[in-house]
Amino acid sequence: MIKAATIKEVKDNVREWKKQGLTIGLVPTMGYLHEGHASLIKRARGECDKVIVSDFVNPIQFGPKEDLATYPRDFDADCELCEGLGTDLIFHPEPSEMYLEGFHSYVGVDTLSTELCGKSRPIHFNGVCTVVSKLFNITEADKAYFGQKDAQQLAIVKRMVRDLNFNIEIVGCPIIREESGLAKSSRNTYLSEEEREKALVLHKALTVGEEMVRSGEKDANVVKKAVTDIIESEPLARVDYVEIVDWNELQKVDKIDGPILTAVAVYFGDKVRLIDNFIVEEAVK
Amino acid sequence: MIKAATIKEVKDNVREWKKQGLTIGLVPTMGYLHEGHASLIKRARGECDKVIVSDFVNPIQFGPKEDLATYPRDFDADCELCEGLGTDLIFHPEPSEMYLEGFHSYVGVDTLSTELCGKSRPIHFNGVCTVVSKLFNITEADKAYFGQKDAQQLAIVKRMVRDLNFNIEIVGCPIIREESGLAKSSRNTYLSEEEREKALVLHKALTVGEEMVRSGEKDANVVKKAVTDIIESEPLARVDYVEIVDWNELQKVDKIDGPILTAVAVYFGDKVRLIDNFIVEEAVK
Repeated sequence: MIKAATIKEVKDNVREWKKQGLTIGLVPTMGYLHEGHASLIKRARGECDKVIVSDFVNPIQFGPKEDLATYPRDFDADCELCEGLGTDLIFHPEPSEMYLEGFHSYVGVDTLSTELCGKSRPIHFNGVCTVVSKLFNITEADKAYFGQKDAQQLAIVKRMVRDLNFNIEIVGCPIIREESGLAKSSRNTYLSEEEREKALVLHKALTVGEEMVRSGEKDANVVKKAVTDIIESEPLARVDYVEIVDWNELQKVDKIDGPILTAVAVYFGDKVRLIDNFIVEEAVK
Repeated sequence: MIKAATIKEVKDNVREWKKQGLTIGLVPTMGYLHEGHASLIKRARGECDKVIVSDFVNPIQFGPKEDLATYPRDFDADCELCEGLGTDLIFHPEPSEMYLEGFHSYVGVDTLSTELCGKSRPIHFNGVCTVVSKLFNITEADKAYFGQKDAQQLAIVKRMVRDLNFNIEIVGCPIIREESGLAKSSRNTYLSEEEREKALVLHKALTVGEEMVRSGEKDANVVKKAVTDIIESEPLARVDYVEIVDWNELQKVDKIDGPILTAVAVYFGDKVRLIDNFIVEEAVK
């Protein structure tokens, strides 16, 4: 496995692979890899000739009061996991390699970025779109793999690729959960034993909500209230949002009559913010 | 010469050319082609295996009170010019082909977009960066050719390509002038006979300014005043701006001690706004 710290190293390898007519799969990550990431790498490994994993805690997608400094990092463990899964190249640049002096460019997607996490994290998705655009250009990947855990990110990146005509296919992959039901996340490492147990309330609430939608409940506010009530029954949980939006423009809906995303963000303690969601692609008759 | 109206047609041709290992040059234009554009196409023809000219009046780079509706168009004449210069493909999409329903994405460059034309045309460079990003992805060109006439645009596109790691080289090409000295522009067609003659004052003023800088004048405000005075001596001319900025970050300078851009924008009558400039790349000792 090649460990590349510079953009030039990646581009040199990519040029060689392209010359040989090989396809490239990209798994963009912020490192501290877990089974969620592993599922993306495995999918890429099965579908592409060469697999690149980027491992970069992207500073510009963190707000000033967020957890950039403390975001968990373990590059050696990441390398081991990637190598074990047959990754061809891991890209692990310094921020100064990605953001040169005089860096002033940005990429973003309106409308889809305004609700859900866009409300409490106003610069977040611009940072994501910008770094992802860079990674697409650096790797010239044919396919890129994103988890549905970050559903809004997935929708935004898909729209960006369509709108800006990137020559890449975005593959959305299912949420990977612990046996308990807790969605895998690098930020789970922040949770105490007790919080980790209490955090199960997210999946529990969403399971009830999904069941309601699939059984034909059309009133978004009824579903929202049921989900919120279950989460708020847990004293350690503080709801950032519980929202139901259409799974196209990500705008709030009152009536469920098409594909919808139900997404939640919940604080545990002061610094841990977890997200989870379900998508119902087919309107229930 | 292939006339393509859809993105798919362009991409199909590009894929075929790439398979053959051919290089591609892109000349992005808004049509109504003149000798300025011709010089870009000739340069591309000399340097690349395949030449694509895009011919698209990009709606999102026009402000609500600007001349989108009246911007001059003559696709048949453009085709004749392009074919005569050995263009391989002219891309002439409808706005609805470039901006699908639910188009929400944007690309921009901060700082470099704030001064000069950025002041009177606040959305302009976002529109330029967005369409240019699309064209780069659609054509996968190795080189793209831009005129120095739009100096701020040239600087912004270069920065965008560097920052976002586009796999393309931006080639800046000199301003092409009529024998009288008037910089070639599609918007010159708006000028009456009289205004066209009076508009020569731009080149005259800039020539004096450039001579001052090359002779060692270090005080930007002295040069600015000289240029402004000459332009304002012409009653038909109404100055939008006369500015001297560093030819890197495009920020105003008081002292000339490095590469600088002197740029002017001047209205003639109510609706014609002309731009012109000179660049001095070497600091004068």
